[in-house]
Amino acid sequence: MSESVIIVAGGSGKRFGSTTPKQFLNLNGKPVLMHALEVFFRYNPSIQIILVLPEAHVNTWNYLVEQHKFAVQHTLVLGGAERFNSVKNGLSVANGDLIAVHDGVRPLAHCKTIEHCFAAAQEYGAAVPVIPIVETLRQLTAESSETVSRDSFRAVQTPQCFRAPLLREAYSQEYTPAFTDDASVVELAGHMIKLVEGNSENIKITNPVDLAIAEALLKM
Amino acid sequence: MSESVIIVAGGSGKRFGSTTPKQFLNLNGKPVLMHALEVFFRYNPSIQIILVLPEAHVNTWNYLVEQHKFAVQHTLVLGGAERFNSVKNGLSVANGDLIAVHDGVRPLAHCKTIEHCFAAAQEYGAAVPVIPIVETLRQLTAESSETVSRDSFRAVQTPQCFRAPLLREAYSQEYTPAFTDDASVVELAGHMIKLVEGNSENIKITNPVDLAIAEALLKM
Repeated sequence: MSESVIIVAGGSGKRFGSTTPKQFLNLNGKPVLMHALEVFFRYNPSIQIILVLPEAHVNTWNYLVEQHKFAVQHTLVLGGAERFNSVKNGLSVANGDLIAVHDGVRPLAHCKTIEHCFAAAQEYGAAVPVIPIVETLRQLTAESSETVSRDSFRAVQTPQCFRAPLLREAYSQEYTPAFTDDASVVELAGHMIKLVEGNSENIKITNPVDLAIAEALLKM
Repeated sequence: MSESVIIVAGGSGKRFGSTTPKQFLNLNGKPVLMHALEVFFRYNPSIQIILVLPEAHVNTWNYLVEQHKFAVQHTLVLGGAERFNSVKNGLSVANGDLIAVHDGVRPLAHCKTIEHCFAAAQEYGAAVPVIPIVETLRQLTAESSETVSRDSFRAVQTPQCFRAPLLREAYSQEYTPAFTDDASVVELAGHMIKLVEGNSENIKITNPVDLAIAEALLKM
């Protein structure tokens, strides 16, 4: 089965306390986003890599590619207003039988995580990597909050992997704000999501502190 | 109001893939546990610090204290079979009007977090630091799992702070496995828990990778 990955790097970085969008921040000598692409190339050198970028960041990306002599082949697609639209734009050029959608700010997915997700997607149609919750969880209630059992919850990462026809059908739905991730889009189209064991290092670069954490994880 | 903190370091480290209990692992030149005690001393040099250790670890701790010339005054108390019993043992020597309970494997609480928790405990009786959930959450169901809104959940850290009489009363209950943390003990005794903003660096050293993360956070 042929494979595609849509890497979504849509954030403008406005909430990051830095003028550089977080996907372009330097991690161990190169932008976070290049790590994300390289992981998929290492996993499968013939995977189709589709990078979705906001139009405003294309020049910066092209400059960085040249500066770093970045050689990983990829197709560049322009992003849309919402993440939903960006994935949809990516889908329009995807040619794999199986399609992964991955956050551009997750530079540390393991090849094993990608492999297991694609395998589960082939078998079940839709699969996402999850990790256990290590902290105690409280749920907010109307008046206060209450302890809930963390054992019945999982934190969801990416890559989220799907059989291509299923993902295309799900993305033909009208956009609603209930679409929090690709799994929720597919779920609202009526399809079950298979949970696969993720790797805890596969963090999302959300705060400046995450960059220091990612550096530490890369050194391990 | 006088303050005490009960620092619970009961884990034997059996699940850590290391023969050294995780509270004794070296972080930036000294054991994780020493960092935890120092944070409270820095916050308030006259706070009563109570350290609860399993009997089997007392010799190691005494050796480390000598080796590191560790000068933070503290009262050593032996741990019990469950965390519940360890906290109870700590309570038996606590003399503060307000009492915090803190995980010995959290070396990176901010003084501001401690201050806010104690202040909220004084006002509301019981307060815990929480942080938002950054990942998408899924809840396991009987047949599968479903997306839930992460906005209505919070991850709970320590120190968990209480007015002393309230905490003592709660700890006079019979032990049940539903006691996941001190807040749940107080909650099951019928008292509301106030949520206070925690600091995201205040991680729990649970996996070997957390030690590398803590090193990176300390350097920031």
